[in-house]
Amino acid sequence: MYRILQVMTDAEVAQCRQIAASAPFVDGKITNPHNTAKQNEQLHDRGAYERSSQLLGGALMRSEEFVNFAFPVALAPPMMTRYKPGMKYGPHADSAFIQLPGATIRSDLSCTIFLNDPGDYEGGDLRISLGDAELSFKLKPGEAVVYPSDTLHQVVPVTRGERLVAITFIQSRIQDPFRRNLLYTLNEVAALEGGNMSPENFTRMQLVQNQLMRYWAETP
Amino acid sequence: MYRILQVMTDAEVAQCRQIAASAPFVDGKITNPHNTAKQNEQLHDRGAYERSSQLLGGALMRSEEFVNFAFPVALAPPMMTRYKPGMKYGPHADSAFIQLPGATIRSDLSCTIFLNDPGDYEGGDLRISLGDAELSFKLKPGEAVVYPSDTLHQVVPVTRGERLVAITFIQSRIQDPFRRNLLYTLNEVAALEGGNMSPENFTRMQLVQNQLMRYWAETP
Amino acid sequence: MYRILQVMTDAEVAQCRQIAASAPFVDGKITNPHNTAKQNEQLHDRGAYERSSQLLGGALMRSEEFVNFAFPVALAPPMMTRYKPGMKYGPHADSAFIQLPGATIRSDLSCTIFLNDPGDYEGGDLRISLGDAELSFKLKPGEAVVYPSDTLHQVVPVTRGERLVAITFIQSRIQDPFRRNLLYTLNEVAALEGGNMSPENFTRMQLVQNQLMRYWAETP
Amino acid sequence: MYRILQVMTDAEVAQCRQIAASAPFVDGKITNPHNTAKQNEQLHDRGAYERSSQLLGGALMRSEEFVNFAFPVALAPPMMTRYKPGMKYGPHADSAFIQLPGATIRSDLSCTIFLNDPGDYEGGDLRISLGDAELSFKLKPGEAVVYPSDTLHQVVPVTRGERLVAITFIQSRIQDPFRRNLLYTLNEVAALEGGNMSPENFTRMQLVQNQLMRYWAETP
Amino acid sequence: MYRILQVMTDAEVAQCRQIAASAPFVDGKITNPHNTAKQNEQLHDRGAYERSSQLLGGALMRSEEFVNFAFPVALAPPMMTRYKPGMKYGPHADSAFIQLPGATIRSDLSCTIFLNDPGDYEGGDLRISLGDAELSFKLKPGEAVVYPSDTLHQVVPVTRGERLVAITFIQSRIQDPFRRNLLYTLNEVAALEGGNMSPENFTRMQLVQNQLMRYWAETP
Amino acid sequence: MYRILQVMTDAEVAQCRQIAASAPFVDGKITNPHNTAKQNEQLHDRGAYERSSQLLGGALMRSEEFVNFAFPVALAPPMMTRYKPGMKYGPHADSAFIQLPGATIRSDLSCTIFLNDPGDYEGGDLRISLGDAELSFKLKPGEAVVYPSDTLHQVVPVTRGERLVAITFIQSRIQDPFRRNLLYTLNEVAALEGGNMSPENFTRMQLVQNQLMRYWAETP
Repeated sequence: MYRILQVMTDAEVAQCRQIAASAPFVDGKITNPHNTAKQNEQLHDRGAYERSSQLLGGALMRSEEFVNFAFPVALAPPMMTRYKPGMKYGPHADSAFIQLPGATIRSDLSCTIFLNDPGDYEGGDLRISLGDAELSFKLKPGEAVVYPSDTLHQVVPVTRGERLVAITFIQSRIQDPFRRNLLYTLNEVAALEGGNMSPENFTRMQLVQNQLMRYWAETP
Repeated sequence: MYRILQVMTDAEVAQCRQIAASAPFVDGKITNPHNTAKQNEQLHDRGAYERSSQLLGGALMRSEEFVNFAFPVALAPPMMTRYKPGMKYGPHADSAFIQLPGATIRSDLSCTIFLNDPGDYEGGDLRISLGDAELSFKLKPGEAVVYPSDTLHQVVPVTRGERLVAITFIQSRIQDPFRRNLLYTLNEVAALEGGNMSPENFTRMQLVQNQLMRYWAETP
Repeated sequence: MYRILQVMTDAEVAQCRQIAASAPFVDGKITNPHNTAKQNEQLHDRGAYERSSQLLGGALMRSEEFVNFAFPVALAPPMMTRYKPGMKYGPHADSAFIQLPGATIRSDLSCTIFLNDPGDYEGGDLRISLGDAELSFKLKPGEAVVYPSDTLHQVVPVTRGERLVAITFIQSRIQDPFRRNLLYTLNEVAALEGGNMSPENFTRMQLVQNQLMRYWAETP
Repeated sequence: MYRILQVMTDAEVAQCRQIAASAPFVDGKITNPHNTAKQNEQLHDRGAYERSSQLLGGALMRSEEFVNFAFPVALAPPMMTRYKPGMKYGPHADSAFIQLPGATIRSDLSCTIFLNDPGDYEGGDLRISLGDAELSFKLKPGEAVVYPSDTLHQVVPVTRGERLVAITFIQSRIQDPFRRNLLYTLNEVAALEGGNMSPENFTRMQLVQNQLMRYWAETP
Repeated sequence: MYRILQVMTDAEVAQCRQIAASAPFVDGKITNPHNTAKQNEQLHDRGAYERSSQLLGGALMRSEEFVNFAFPVALAPPMMTRYKPGMKYGPHADSAFIQLPGATIRSDLSCTIFLNDPGDYEGGDLRISLGDAELSFKLKPGEAVVYPSDTLHQVVPVTRGERLVAITFIQSRIQDPFRRNLLYTLNEVAALEGGNMSPENFTRMQLVQNQLMRYWAETP
Repeated sequence: MYRILQVMTDAEVAQCRQIAASAPFVDGKITNPHNTAKQNEQLHDRGAYERSSQLLGGALMRSEEFVNFAFPVALAPPMMTRYKPGMKYGPHADSAFIQLPGATIRSDLSCTIFLNDPGDYEGGDLRISLGDAELSFKLKPGEAVVYPSDTLHQVVPVTRGERLVAITFIQSRIQDPFRRNLLYTLNEVAALEGGNMSPENFTRMQLVQNQLMRYWAETP
């Protein structure tokens, strides 16, 4: 399941762009030296990285929809990446585990937060391969798409303008996507329809939700 | 979970009693020769067994509540057993697999159908041990109790009169009791509250139910 | 994962259309009486159904790509369905288990085989909902799309012409989609690259493939 | 499985009662504001809470029987709750995860420690629903009942006197109750009968116990 | 786990040898045409195959030790194979599923029954690779070794005389080797020590054995 | 699977021997008081233990082969043990969980590092029982054998000289040996053959490896 969320205010987007405009970017190969598919730039200034990742991560985590959907237990600090004309990120699979300073997280879900206007660049779509079908995302500034990390995906070449996004990886309390989506759907139905149920049936519904959480969720 | 169901009509109960009254019973050890805990009698006439087991099995399988609760995929032919004063069936665990002529079934659930009046005998309660707690069943004629086969249970000594019951074993499409009960509860809530939900949410609820069936149920 | 396969020859497509043209169709509610979302027609003549389902099922099962992808263990006889202007099949979830005469199958994968030209009708796309994203299929005659049965999907209203397709449901030897897709991918890589590997490494690769089959596949 | 344990000395019970007598209680809704079923009072003084929970938690954890049965890995600080005439806690399901200051625990098992004499109040039984059967507990001061958190349970209305208990939630190293109970039983049999076995068979038995621990227990 | 069993009488071994001596053998590649590792001969006469496989399969299935160890649910008809000087079967992995006329079985365990004297040939050891360690088997006539099918194994070149064995594949009711071995060990301990236990503890032990069978064994 | 690794340099072996020669050893029963099978000596000096365990543990963890094979997440500090003539460690099963100061680890793999020359002592082989087969290890100084902790194993009596080894226990990120070995093999094949694959197929292979890591590995 794929979720598109409005996570950042215009002011926050503007702040991120400002940080991006004034801080150095380096070749994205720095964090994946052997990855020939990766041709982009990423933010490379400790202070700028900390400020922007707090802004971006904070926006994600305050989104109730995001929290309900992803059951996040850990979030890699979002990193701004930039694609200039000719740049792309060929089809690849995200690593299962990501080393952060002082921690390792499992990337169950990946997230791209779009930071400039889709009209400002050509190409640069995020394409996710589902066998013989394909999904394509090019969202408005401040919008994020959350997608399973275990798909083959790519950023198609930018042919004009500049693509500025932030990317992050989420470790979910429910690793298995089938289980996570099922519980998310059940929780949503219960939240939306619980008020229409008899108290007795709502209590039974909650029992089911709690049982599945016990059974499927990793302890935090 | 334990379910008490009214499964037989008075006429059917009367027929069973008539069969029991006119057919020979033998020592219950015949089917469990090494089981020292078992001290009862069981019906031992092919014709009488066939007639009574069809009556009893048919009554169970036509109970919608039973089918919804047990997800039955196979049923051992119910067998009438009789306890006279002094007889009992000490604490025991039901076998996981039961050899029938031409088939083997897994006993996930056990079922006792009571055939005479609780006032007609003293003792003879079905006692199920749950660690330091205990459940006790002594039901009306035509009522059945369905309980997990993997508990320690016993029939306490009959001290007066005669206890006539039929027992059977059920293989469920959902072996795991946790999963079976959870899906039963969810199905019940959906059946009772589906009409109050928006069509969209009811469809999502059905998706969840179908996903769990695919994931948990053995193919028939 | 979604797979688009060319499964039928032009001659076979023509035969199916001929059968459809000369046999009676009835309201699709006949097989799903309580489903208000379903507004289409389905073939309702025993002889025509048998001839067409053999043609369609045979075409699917002779496709090596289909067999490699789906690990099919049972196939519901494909049924031709027809959508005239105004008809549609609203968002729904396919049943987990489907009763056929003499058998029950689990629907792990669903398949739509397109039988007339996409230019012959407007609307009638198969839309599969993936949360906030959506896939849409409208294929050439003789092409089939195979998709997981546990998604919410719909056929959008036909506004002109006639949509003629056949639908079927597949029980896979590997119920879990994650495992099925993983093994399919591994088998593909081994088939395509095995000749380039050292014999020793190819043998180790085969050991892994066989171990996963033992571990994940249901016995046929 | 349900376990009844004598966990507190008379002196400890007296201390708890003294704390309860001299510290303020507040409406139990404070920790479950949306729970209409809950009508009781709970201790609401930081110092009193700390003293009593150390006393109560310490008593539980020093019980070898408790440790063997529950495989506890975390324990919520037990909280004293009080039911005056008219108070009750209607049927409810315990939350799967409980937020504590600085930690979150999964509630696999629930525990009620009784603190005053059953003769001192009427009603106030702990009732656990097992479908159509029911268990009821009203124990002596210092006794505790440990029961699965994933049952529907209630405290029936107190009609006279005062019910004083402490409740807590236990995260077990073995989440699945089937596995936990099985391993508990196997460990008990090995402890009681190991001395009668040949050294070789006892070693094999230990191998089985260790394998199941590796396989089923969460790492601490 | 590896089991060595005396399964055939001298008379049965003699009968097998006689059949082998008078029936045609063909190149073993006939059943594995693409397998370059396989250089041996196998029996290729329908009548001789039927007679010998009944003799060999019957001997295995009457061995109580074999049945207790393997939990067999299906057995491929054992086939006699012959290695003359220079012949061998290089390292390979047995197929997960084996097509038989009218059935497919999963090969969980493989079995080699030795039919001539180890002194009659040089080389021809069955070598099983366990990473950097290795097991080697060259047994007496009538003895069988049962080993997991999911290991890399080989028959080293015969350098003198003739190696005559029969091979077969077993589908177990418990696919997972960890679980199968654990339950086998527990059953053995219970069988050997049950008589020394108190009846109560023996009943609890049986409950555990039955629970694991329900949980782990495939229905026959 | 069993792995033999050259992990220590001659200099490191010499250092360990020196520590052993100058520090006190005590009866091995000190850490397993009830274990009658254990008759050996173990190092019992805090400083000597710290120095030697850092040397030994560091050597193991710098071995890429060890890390690839064991997926280690925690390592008990290796402890030197000594067997003089007449000493042995009878057949035993390693504990599933091992209490260390400040931590508990699960012993998935056991490891013996040999520290003196096999010619310097008679007997003292590490024997691992695999049912009716047996593996025996007596390695060169600096070599280690890594084996599953859930086997019955023993050290046969030393009859001459002195056996000096270090032993340790490893908690793996992948508890299940079947899964650990499968992923190890797949990773090895990918590492050795990846360069010969098309980039597209290598990417698909990596997707499979990452999916299995997500699915099977415990989060660190």
